Amino acid sequence: MTIQSVIIEKITPQVDGGRYPIKREVGDIVTVSAGIYKDGHDMLTAVLRYRKKKTGKGSAGKWTEVPMVEGENFEWTASFSVDEIGHYQYTIEAWPNVFGTWLDEATKKHAAGVDISSELLEGQRFIMEAQQRAPKAERDRFTRCVERIEASQLVNRDVAVRVITEAQYAHMMDQFPDKRLATEYDPPLEIIVDPIRARFANWYEIFPRSQGRIPGQSGTFKDCEARLSEIEGMGFNVLYFPPIHPIGETNRKGANNSLIANPDEPGCPYAIGNKRGGHKAVDPDLGTLGDFDRLVTACRAMGLEIALDFAINCSPDHPYVKDHPEWFYKRPDGSIKYAENPPKKYEDIYSLDFHCENRESLWNEMKSVIEFWIGHGVDIFRVDNPHTKPVAFWAWMIPEIKKNHPQVTFLAEAFTHPKMMQMLAKVGFTQSYTYFTWRNYKEEITEYLTELTQGPMKEYYRGNFFVNTPDILPKFLQTSGRPGFKIRVLLAATLSSVYGIYSGFELCENAAVAGKEEYLHSEKYEYKVWDWDRPGNIKDYIAKLNWIRGAHSALQEYDNLEFYLSEDEHILAYGKTSEDGKDIIVVIVNLDPHVTHESHIFLPIKDFGIGPAESYEVHDLITDAHYQWRGEKNWVRLDPIVEPAHVFHIRR
Amino acid sequence: MTIQSVIIEKITPQVDGGRYPIKREVGDIVTVSAGIYKDGHDMLTAVLRYRKKKTGKGSAGKWTEVPMVEGENFEWTASFSVDEIGHYQYTIEAWPNVFGTWLDEATKKHAAGVDISSELLEGQRFIMEAQQRAPKAERDRFTRCVERIEASQLVNRDVAVRVITEAQYAHMMDQFPDKRLATEYDPPLEIIVDPIRARFANWYEIFPRSQGRIPGQSGTFKDCEARLSEIEGMGFNVLYFPPIHPIGETNRKGANNSLIANPDEPGCPYAIGNKRGGHKAVDPDLGTLGDFDRLVTACRAMGLEIALDFAINCSPDHPYVKDHPEWFYKRPDGSIKYAENPPKKYEDIYSLDFHCENRESLWNEMKSVIEFWIGHGVDIFRVDNPHTKPVAFWAWMIPEIKKNHPQVTFLAEAFTHPKMMQMLAKVGFTQSYTYFTWRNYKEEITEYLTELTQGPMKEYYRGNFFVNTPDILPKFLQTSGRPGFKIRVLLAATLSSVYGIYSGFELCENAAVAGKEEYLHSEKYEYKVWDWDRPGNIKDYIAKLNWIRGAHSALQEYDNLEFYLSEDEHILAYGKTSEDGKDIIVVIVNLDPHVTHESHIFLPIKDFGIGPAESYEVHDLITDAHYQWRGEKNWVRLDPIVEPAHVFHIRR
Repeated sequence: MTIQSVIIEKITPQVDGGRYPIKREVGDIVTVSAGIYKDGHDMLTAVLRYRKKKTGKGSAGKWTEVPMVEGENFEWTASFSVDEIGHYQYTIEAWPNVFGTWLDEATKKHAAGVDISSELLEGQRFIMEAQQRAPKAERDRFTRCVERIEASQLVNRDVAVRVITEAQYAHMMDQFPDKRLATEYDPPLEIIVDPIRARFANWYEIFPRSQGRIPGQSGTFKDCEARLSEIEGMGFNVLYFPPIHPIGETNRKGANNSLIANPDEPGCPYAIGNKRGGHKAVDPDLGTLGDFDRLVTACRAMGLEIALDFAINCSPDHPYVKDHPEWFYKRPDGSIKYAENPPKKYEDIYSLDFHCENRESLWNEMKSVIEFWIGHGVDIFRVDNPHTKPVAFWAWMIPEIKKNHPQVTFLAEAFTHPKMMQMLAKVGFTQSYTYFTWRNYKEEITEYLTELTQGPMKEYYRGNFFVNTPDILPKFLQTSGRPGFKIRVLLAATLSSVYGIYSGFELCENAAVAGKEEYLHSEKYEYKVWDWDRPGNIKDYIAKLNWIRGAHSALQEYDNLEFYLSEDEHILAYGKTSEDGKDIIVVIVNLDPHVTHESHIFLPIKDFGIGPAESYEVHDLITDAHYQWRGEKNWVRLDPIVEPAHVFHIRR
Repeated sequence: MTIQSVIIEKITPQVDGGRYPIKREVGDIVTVSAGIYKDGHDMLTAVLRYRKKKTGKGSAGKWTEVPMVEGENFEWTASFSVDEIGHYQYTIEAWPNVFGTWLDEATKKHAAGVDISSELLEGQRFIMEAQQRAPKAERDRFTRCVERIEASQLVNRDVAVRVITEAQYAHMMDQFPDKRLATEYDPPLEIIVDPIRARFANWYEIFPRSQGRIPGQSGTFKDCEARLSEIEGMGFNVLYFPPIHPIGETNRKGANNSLIANPDEPGCPYAIGNKRGGHKAVDPDLGTLGDFDRLVTACRAMGLEIALDFAINCSPDHPYVKDHPEWFYKRPDGSIKYAENPPKKYEDIYSLDFHCENRESLWNEMKSVIEFWIGHGVDIFRVDNPHTKPVAFWAWMIPEIKKNHPQVTFLAEAFTHPKMMQMLAKVGFTQSYTYFTWRNYKEEITEYLTELTQGPMKEYYRGNFFVNTPDILPKFLQTSGRPGFKIRVLLAATLSSVYGIYSGFELCENAAVAGKEEYLHSEKYEYKVWDWDRPGNIKDYIAKLNWIRGAHSALQEYDNLEFYLSEDEHILAYGKTSEDGKDIIVVIVNLDPHVTHESHIFLPIKDFGIGPAESYEVHDLITDAHYQWRGEKNWVRLDPIVEPAHVFHIRR
């Protein structure tokens, strides 16, 4: 335990005492606070330092220094902005301000009529010491200073005090302080600065093979291209594909996850690899790698980005099985084990043993898969079941990738215990799936969102709110009808700054396997052809929500959520305000898809800059209706069949 | 960032991520929890390890291992007791339970009718691997195990599974586990184990020179001896003296802190040192060092311990000034500076410069002062103004002393900013003064005590609740009359397990310097003779409180405080329950010393093991009255002139 003269402690923000980096997005202001103090009565000086770390591409970082300002109870604060994507560091240095303390005390004594001739000599000594610390070119200024003090003392002490307290000398002394008792906080704290899309994006998930028009036949990348303008028209900007690689033939699964597939069935894309290739190949049914590259280019042109699935599963036909049998779990007879969670078996998949003897080659190969797709223009990876691979692997692989490709985004698809989900985010995942998918009631939404956006998790865990996934058709949607689909997408799009839907949702698709949260006739096991304009769809509603998100910066922030009081247990009220305080969005939603509810709503109008008796306009961005409200308490009535929610823009 | 295969995180208890030790008292049970988990579905094994560290006297510690038990959400727990005073360590090791996982999976598969011949071979391999890890003498057991499994397989697989799942084999395997993927939490966490008196003690502070009977003449150690039975009779067990050393003559302060002393005035004992000696000498007016030793022995015989003041101030006449002028702050003309906090001056005191060039000799000399008094039977030191000396000094000195004298108690007299008070406790102070002295109202008492006893501070900060000190006669006591004195000592004695009074309090002494919180005619500057049986004294009340504290283990714990609902803003209700749940004390106090108040009180009778309609006895330990109460809601009325408080012992 080394204790230094000046104590620097409780620095915020930080994660687990600095063990893991905080996350920010480019352009953010990082405000750092710390407890800084020392024994006795000395004045202190503290500076915040930050720098961008060297990356594969960038240059070595130089520290920039920002003075910290002292507040109440030894709390010091300073800010800086992170203007580039990449890895930053920050730290604090603090020291007793010897000259400042002396100046303060001498001035007080002189004011109290005390003889300060001894103090003036002391001050001169400090100035001469500072002179020694200054570079040669600067030293003359100090000599002149000492001379002026000496000369002024001959006049009288009042003049001497006036001279020595001139701002220029304090400033001069501040430039070359006595740092013998300085404390530097070490090691520095870390920041991962990601692109804006890490915090603010609208995801849309499709199976490329379901984008065709001919039943029983695989859709292709070209079919996907044909759908881009429609997808972009709905306001999405990330287009996410489940695995696009060749699919295993051995023990291939049939429709509805049946154990035996007919010869014409396509299999599950999560059973990756066959003789045509593995994780670095594309399923020929979808097209060629060239077709994929063209699709990426077409997406870019429309402001869309492709997200690929990174699923570390190998079918028994994956080239790795032949080339690297040592990477897999073996039975005593030497054969490779398929994946299982007894008594459940996954006969079409082999798991990789991340602790095998030749693990270095395996870990490097996995990293090279990511690099391969980065080379093909993919910057976003949704990682399948990361919690079944060692945390140590992600803690190595993600920072390794980000060294050369700091723009890359990794989304952790871990639906497991909270501690593991948090840990994956801490060691590097840019975004994470959440339990939002199963939070339907007022109390549970309020509690969970408060934990995500207002507690320690906000520093490192960005919840990407999916309303459904190929594996999850939530019970709520199975019985909620169209109003329920609107409610859920509205919640996702306004509670979190980053959210997504899995296609079919916009069509209010709700056919489930009986008693389960699984889709009937899931796309995971078969070719599908959809009518994307199916009656009853909510495409316009989604497009409107995405338009609102794009137009209102308040909805583009993650940790600015606040819940408001409503009297009815079905009516949830919350809001977000942009950092500059100018954009205020208030959402009031009836969580019950079947029954009309009404309630008083209490808004914190004081925080909005609205007086207690002032009237203000609430503009419903969904219906374009305008209302005049007054005071903090107002009344709403929401019929889910008409509109389950208000999304109000508040204007004074 | 090293991430291991098994994650061990969020260990409790700990202070600031393990940077500082937690504190416990001898005989305590330490319950340790942690989040422990791993990727995938492996079962885990976790053990808690603890040991007593080597001390100057003790022997090198050996680790003892306790199995941890898994609860909800990856939370693991185990306990151990700290049976000796000194320095302990604890840590956790966890690893995948390879054999246990295999056994569980094989059993499930077999139960589901799967052919497990391959699994049985695998199990045999695990057993043979464990055999290699076992010492030679144990290996036969493993061979027999493998043979039995092979033989039983010849009969049928059911028998083989039965054999392999026999508890003895699992136990045998647990003894020699496969730890290739083990994680050990490192560095270990630390515990300072103090004597019980660190948590539970009743302090009484006197100026030895005020214990005489002759006006204008110094009391002596012998006079102190004459008062011991009376002090012990009031139930005190720590007798604390302000400095007992020779007092400076230069610039000696006179009565009521006047700048000039008459020749017959004794000076302030905090201006330490004259030609008769310094910190290792006693003021000849009090007697000899031999007299002091005799007093210590007399105290011990009555179960009292002496606490000495450690005040690092030197009078201009202190031997250090001549012997070590380099330890002091100097003016430019070479003369030594007296202490000041401009424009305030302390002309009778020189401060030591803990950062002077020859600081090593200074720090060692300060340590030797403590060692000197330990040599004279003193184990308790109240440290004056520790926040004006470097934290680094305490962080070095206290552990150095405790290496050879782990029983020593240091009380930090720091009335300053909360962060500094907390830091001094973190780096080693056994106990600390608190703001209790100025907390008089219900809300502020509830808030402050909750912070002290229920938050992170409870692990390292033991608040010693003083109702007054020679420097503090709180405003409340200046106007409260006798009821107020009873209220304050009752609060101190029942809110905290360690508390104290400065003598005069029991006489309800309340004469203050006008407009200040200082005693008029303070003992700090003059000889006093007291009538210890002055009419209106509350000695019997204090004796009763101390008797109750001694008889009720609930009041001897620090962090078991709970506040209860009362409807009246002047009536505070709280309680403490012993660790075994058997001793339940409920205190209900009228905080207003002038007016009778009454209120409903709501007790958590369910926690007391009392049914909602059950009647129970509340026995007022102050008045010996018995009442029958029923249900959680009951009524009290407290007239401060009669008795301001109930101290109820709850009996079913």
